[in-house]
Amino acid sequence: MKKYNVGILGATGAVGKEMLKVLAERAFPIANLRLFASCKSAGSIIQFNGKEIVVEEAKHGIYDGIDIMLGAAQNKVAKEFAPDFLKAGIVFIDNSSAFRMEEEVPLVVPEINKEDILKHHGIIANPNCSTIITLVAVNAINKLSKIKAMIASTYQATSGAGAYGPVELLDQMDAIVNKKEIKTSIFPYQIASNLIPQIGSFLEDGYTTEEMKMQNEGRKIMHLPSLKVTCTCVRVPVERSHSISVTVIPKDKLTLEDVRTELTKTEGVKLLDDPQNKIYPMPLDTSNQDTVYVGRLREDKVFENGITLWCTGDQVRKGAATNAIQIAEKLIEYNA
Amino acid sequence: MKKYNVGILGATGAVGKEMLKVLAERAFPIANLRLFASCKSAGSIIQFNGKEIVVEEAKHGIYDGIDIMLGAAQNKVAKEFAPDFLKAGIVFIDNSSAFRMEEEVPLVVPEINKEDILKHHGIIANPNCSTIITLVAVNAINKLSKIKAMIASTYQATSGAGAYGPVELLDQMDAIVNKKEIKTSIFPYQIASNLIPQIGSFLEDGYTTEEMKMQNEGRKIMHLPSLKVTCTCVRVPVERSHSISVTVIPKDKLTLEDVRTELTKTEGVKLLDDPQNKIYPMPLDTSNQDTVYVGRLREDKVFENGITLWCTGDQVRKGAATNAIQIAEKLIEYNA
Repeated sequence: MKKYNVGILGATGAVGKEMLKVLAERAFPIANLRLFASCKSAGSIIQFNGKEIVVEEAKHGIYDGIDIMLGAAQNKVAKEFAPDFLKAGIVFIDNSSAFRMEEEVPLVVPEINKEDILKHHGIIANPNCSTIITLVAVNAINKLSKIKAMIASTYQATSGAGAYGPVELLDQMDAIVNKKEIKTSIFPYQIASNLIPQIGSFLEDGYTTEEMKMQNEGRKIMHLPSLKVTCTCVRVPVERSHSISVTVIPKDKLTLEDVRTELTKTEGVKLLDDPQNKIYPMPLDTSNQDTVYVGRLREDKVFENGITLWCTGDQVRKGAATNAIQIAEKLIEYNA
Repeated sequence: MKKYNVGILGATGAVGKEMLKVLAERAFPIANLRLFASCKSAGSIIQFNGKEIVVEEAKHGIYDGIDIMLGAAQNKVAKEFAPDFLKAGIVFIDNSSAFRMEEEVPLVVPEINKEDILKHHGIIANPNCSTIITLVAVNAINKLSKIKAMIASTYQATSGAGAYGPVELLDQMDAIVNKKEIKTSIFPYQIASNLIPQIGSFLEDGYTTEEMKMQNEGRKIMHLPSLKVTCTCVRVPVERSHSISVTVIPKDKLTLEDVRTELTKTEGVKLLDDPQNKIYPMPLDTSNQDTVYVGRLREDKVFENGITLWCTGDQVRKGAATNAIQIAEKLIEYNA
């Protein structure tokens, strides 16, 4: 089996660290692994499959010989180094939002549109975390009848703000329990025992950048250019799984039974929908694994064809690290 | 000024205790106050306005002389004693859901339909907590143009499960912080750092009793018999304010400016909508007071006339105790 030289840009962040775990778990065919980070983390040593790897400082012109670069850095960093990767003939699978909406960049959830990978010109983008989790679930409906619109409210975990998000939640829980002063640094307000209805920055029309990703990225991933999505993104005091309450409006009237059958055979999805026995998806149960759980399936009360559901998934894994590595695996399959 | 003999049925629960606070704060014109509870709490002593009141056991035939009974007990208890109150000529303002949908029972949010109080036959019902908070906000839109439909996702605080809900949340936060065993008793699953997409019990169509209240009670309160509502109710690890993400579809196209102006003059509402300066409603800020905060006002992306917003309010106060006492105040005004 052919092995690949792999790099991780932003290897010491929450997503980068998870990528290392997922690469090892899935026995990704690695010849050599190089890890890159800012000068702050450069020089630190990371264990991978029993070997010690020294983290290198991300600099220009040092990437020759790498086949696949997994991007787990911020937009600015992704943009700065993408030209280096292109020049070195590296395929850059990027988790930032820097290139997602560029026409020549495939935006891929392998369970939905893996064949888009074939159209890449050096960069393949990994979608937004809530968008991935929602679409893995609702694409089962889209397969039965094209989705026209969705109304989504998200319940997003603190891990979405990076490695220190859950740490801040825990520190604030400690402060509440022990009646100490509550300190905020990652989130604009206290998140423990609170909700913050802002993720991303605000656009002119009052939506946040995060909220618009569900529509814009959803259109591109599901090949539905006129899909309309209203999304409200809310940060909740949960560690690392995102949950989404969504009403999906497909073109045709579907029965719940049809949707259930389709969800049961959908890759990456587990149907957990036995409410009478208190069986439904909860973020606590979906953390540290790759499946999107779907439940609370109902006929919508407002729209003739509407279907309402609740889904939850680990945002660090399926929402970011795992999805990127699944893209890399498909890329290898296509090139084999 | 005329004074009234007032009783509280279920005086030792979360809502009953809050009613005592609200009665004192608002200087409700009380001649004599009697407190009733189950045999478990009977005999305990409660301070009210500097006087000690001994809690009586709720029994049949002991209510003569009371003018207004505030109900803060469960459905079963409300149903058991309502005939006693009717026989004694008492007006029963009941917070349980036992009588809400009975035709001859007004269901009242004073800011919306106080005149319905006049039609009572001895019982006036206090609506569901999330329904009150949502409707106080969205009725501003309904005044401008009749609402046809709403799609709501709730973020409901632990206080909605009674006085021990927030205690269980705090205990579980303590267990997480100190790595102790997590115990559940009030909620079916761990609620700290988790979400539970079930409030109430499940109906045949997959909706919960709680979710259907938004449609059924909404129709009755706003006098909109054909209102359609899809609601998803979720318990979140928050102490005592409920939040709701809702898309409202009125009959006509309204401008956001019109809605803002109407919200600004709506009784019981505070518009908190300056997202660029990170100003939006959060449950931490709305607890222990009576105003419903509204923000994140946007034109909906899916529906031509749709308006999407986020609102939050204290579910023990405006969602229960305060609303009941406001009903009592209006009743007195009408009788004066």
